[in-house]
Amino acid sequence: MLNKIGRDIPMELECLQGRRIYEGQFAMTETGTRAGKPVKLHTPGENKLLGSIDEAIEKVGLKDGMSISFHHHLRNGDYVMKLVMDRVQAKGIKDITILNSSLAPCHEFLIDMIKDGTVTAIETSGLRDALGKFLSLNPGVLKRPVVIRSHGGRARAVCTGEAHIDVAFMGVPACDHRGNATGRKGKSACGALGYAMVDSHYADKTVLLTDNLIDYVYPISIPQTDVDYIVEVEAIGDPEGIASGAVGITKNPVQIKIAEMAAEFLDQAGIIQEGFSFQLGAGGAPLAVAKFIGEKLEKKGVVGGFGVGGATGVLVSMLEKGHIKAIYDTQTFDTTAAASLDTNPNHIEMSASMYADPTIDCMTNYLDVVFLGATEIDTDFNVNCMTDSNGILMGASGGHSDTAAGAKVTVITCPLIRGRLPMIRERVETVITPGESIDVLVTERGIAINPNRQDLIERFKDSNLPIYTIEELQQMAYDMVGKPEGIEVSQDPKDVVAIIEYRDGSIIDVVRKPLL
Amino acid sequence: MLNKIGRDIPMELECLQGRRIYEGQFAMTETGTRAGKPVKLHTPGENKLLGSIDEAIEKVGLKDGMSISFHHHLRNGDYVMKLVMDRVQAKGIKDITILNSSLAPCHEFLIDMIKDGTVTAIETSGLRDALGKFLSLNPGVLKRPVVIRSHGGRARAVCTGEAHIDVAFMGVPACDHRGNATGRKGKSACGALGYAMVDSHYADKTVLLTDNLIDYVYPISIPQTDVDYIVEVEAIGDPEGIASGAVGITKNPVQIKIAEMAAEFLDQAGIIQEGFSFQLGAGGAPLAVAKFIGEKLEKKGVVGGFGVGGATGVLVSMLEKGHIKAIYDTQTFDTTAAASLDTNPNHIEMSASMYADPTIDCMTNYLDVVFLGATEIDTDFNVNCMTDSNGILMGASGGHSDTAAGAKVTVITCPLIRGRLPMIRERVETVITPGESIDVLVTERGIAINPNRQDLIERFKDSNLPIYTIEELQQMAYDMVGKPEGIEVSQDPKDVVAIIEYRDGSIIDVVRKPLL
Repeated sequence: MLNKIGRDIPMELECLQGRRIYEGQFAMTETGTRAGKPVKLHTPGENKLLGSIDEAIEKVGLKDGMSISFHHHLRNGDYVMKLVMDRVQAKGIKDITILNSSLAPCHEFLIDMIKDGTVTAIETSGLRDALGKFLSLNPGVLKRPVVIRSHGGRARAVCTGEAHIDVAFMGVPACDHRGNATGRKGKSACGALGYAMVDSHYADKTVLLTDNLIDYVYPISIPQTDVDYIVEVEAIGDPEGIASGAVGITKNPVQIKIAEMAAEFLDQAGIIQEGFSFQLGAGGAPLAVAKFIGEKLEKKGVVGGFGVGGATGVLVSMLEKGHIKAIYDTQTFDTTAAASLDTNPNHIEMSASMYADPTIDCMTNYLDVVFLGATEIDTDFNVNCMTDSNGILMGASGGHSDTAAGAKVTVITCPLIRGRLPMIRERVETVITPGESIDVLVTERGIAINPNRQDLIERFKDSNLPIYTIEELQQMAYDMVGKPEGIEVSQDPKDVVAIIEYRDGSIIDVVRKPLL
Repeated sequence: MLNKIGRDIPMELECLQGRRIYEGQFAMTETGTRAGKPVKLHTPGENKLLGSIDEAIEKVGLKDGMSISFHHHLRNGDYVMKLVMDRVQAKGIKDITILNSSLAPCHEFLIDMIKDGTVTAIETSGLRDALGKFLSLNPGVLKRPVVIRSHGGRARAVCTGEAHIDVAFMGVPACDHRGNATGRKGKSACGALGYAMVDSHYADKTVLLTDNLIDYVYPISIPQTDVDYIVEVEAIGDPEGIASGAVGITKNPVQIKIAEMAAEFLDQAGIIQEGFSFQLGAGGAPLAVAKFIGEKLEKKGVVGGFGVGGATGVLVSMLEKGHIKAIYDTQTFDTTAAASLDTNPNHIEMSASMYADPTIDCMTNYLDVVFLGATEIDTDFNVNCMTDSNGILMGASGGHSDTAAGAKVTVITCPLIRGRLPMIRERVETVITPGESIDVLVTERGIAINPNRQDLIERFKDSNLPIYTIEELQQMAYDMVGKPEGIEVSQDPKDVVAIIEYRDGSIIDVVRKPLL
């Protein structure tokens, strides 16, 4: 069945029975209520602190067929999933759904657990490297295709109970004996715990793993009211993998040129003004925009509103220089930002629900601008940031479609050509964000405005900026490197390896096994 | 039907159909899940800030028969309920259930709203003065008896959906334009917002009223994810009524003697030791205990754990002197404590759920000791703190039964005689806290240990403290002032004016119209 953006969704798949196809960025008419944890009596003398992960697995009653979640705040330094899954495997528990906020290269061990039937389903925002390749090329190795969700879409699915978590195993850098937890303190400090806050609140059972049991925690990110058990472990992660040092601004001249042009575009669009609020994606060009925005704010003598993170040192520097008044942070990318969250009251932690859940009055709806990257974009402005040029799962949905839907202006920054491949396609292989959410594409050779933003096209008709149609930009690339061939993918519904959920839970695309 | 403590509950009342009677402090076998707010799509450009209370009433769709809630953090200085209810009345909306965390003398205006049918039901923790008297003497003036709940019982009822709030109107001393709110800042600062946190999270709709709209709020007590609308008003309360100046320690020699003896009892019981945690009720003697505990901790050279508030300057002083390590605070009683909450990271705000909800791993379950007052206590150690010697509603259930159930040792401090009336009765008029939760009664003339604490009786058999049976203490009072007559109350089920819910939702007692 073709959805609104012309993607053919094989609704005959068992996992799509009863599901809706994508009908537009605000087409959803969700009803019902938020989900809630099971209720039971608590009595004095209960002790949440258990002796081992095995004991936790027994106490929560983990069994075949359950869904368990982990968060990705520890990024590629995460030890927690392996610590838990090794014990799940050792106990012979099978048919587990991994319902993660995202997956990193360090989770490659899941391949073996898929092969032996310990893990039979995966739902995540991101998927990369060996695991991404394994799942892209081996349809049927899981009992159903991987479900890819945006950060806001996952918060929605967990909040509404559509994605039911039986047990959340949450690594926390510090907690007390009753389970009040924070990501700000300890050798494994990771900053905000925005994804963990949601899982802990809605999971049937929540188990904290920590390497830093302390007496009192404040501010509390995860409250004891959402925690069932605590297990102390030697280490929840590798500090080197949890947070990099300060993420600096790119020195790549193409990215700098794109960033400068994007900032100039915004300025001429009249958007850089008192109180203007924005999010910068984590890529090179989006982050580099910060520098130019800062300069423009200073020149105008005005102060922005808030920046939304994934916070980095770049954003923190804008806060500290007084270019913006606050940061709202759901996950913290580097050590500079983690330190800022711990000490600066205007660096404000938020849950993934508050960040981007479309069923909640979320911060992405208050963005004036978001700068996002793309693996590829097509002439309908649809964006892919999930599969590579071979059709292999290697990215993340992240907050891409959430911020793009919410922001008044969504800017894609992307080089015209990468590795001799044009980045503007007739049709992207995988749609994460629909073209209707994208307003502007900025490349190093020129800018294309989405035709549905006639207001912007009108405003820029006499601009000194290099404004083109997206087809003109595409032709420039074709003139340089030629028109690329498409990827061949299997059309057999059995070879669908991933379902791409739009943030409202409708199906915007599927990923099919590439025929390499 | 007689419940476990011999109270005759008229189960034929319509409002008690399907309800359980009290069967013991931990008899509950609650199942089901926590309730959840309705889910709907939120889009960019929504504006929560409304022009008037009228507009809020229209937007939330308030209509006849709905339940609305207000919190009692503004105590007797509260303007919010009157501001809202005046508009509800003006709009001709009838048959409203007021589902408050508590009621203060300033809410006397409800009498007129009951008379004209605007308000037809009341659920609260406390009820006093003119309103208490009016409801005690006029059964049938509401469509069903008042429901009295403990703070933890109310959190449970709201959390499980048993007490469904259609609209929560929450006065907040500060919030931003998206509805992130705190009680710490502004001319109407009240400190913690523990009750408001629960209502905001579970109500179908949440409307904030504020007199202090600011740019950014942190730490966030009520998050924007739980807020639908905001109305700015001139003032949400009268600062003089919101928080008194520092509540000092009593100078009443009887109360000081009781407090000193209670502290000495604890010490001899071996309870005052490293890490010991406690709550002090708001009465004179309970607060005075703080001074003696502090002295004993200093003498021993040990430090307590946490104190639980209702926080006062007395508790803050213990924190600042290093006698305890932290305060957990659900409501803040005086300006000293409010200032402490705003500035001291070890003064930790908590929701009413985290404080006392029996379906949640609550702080009351971690108490070593609680000191509580009583209007009267009987020889079964049942405690009344709700009706006066004439049987009129004039108190509050508060956290009495919650803390008593949770604490390892529950100490009732009470003079033997008040106004020539013995305080130890054969049978208290109204049971708020069952005797099985009470361990010790301390009066100025002696101490009685509950016979179900044989361990304590054994420990104190050679103590120099004046240990008696509760019957002996009662006889001392009778010897001085004679045996009091009981109150006559109507036995007609139609004359039941209030239902006393135990914290688990079972019916522990009813209040019947006194025949004055």
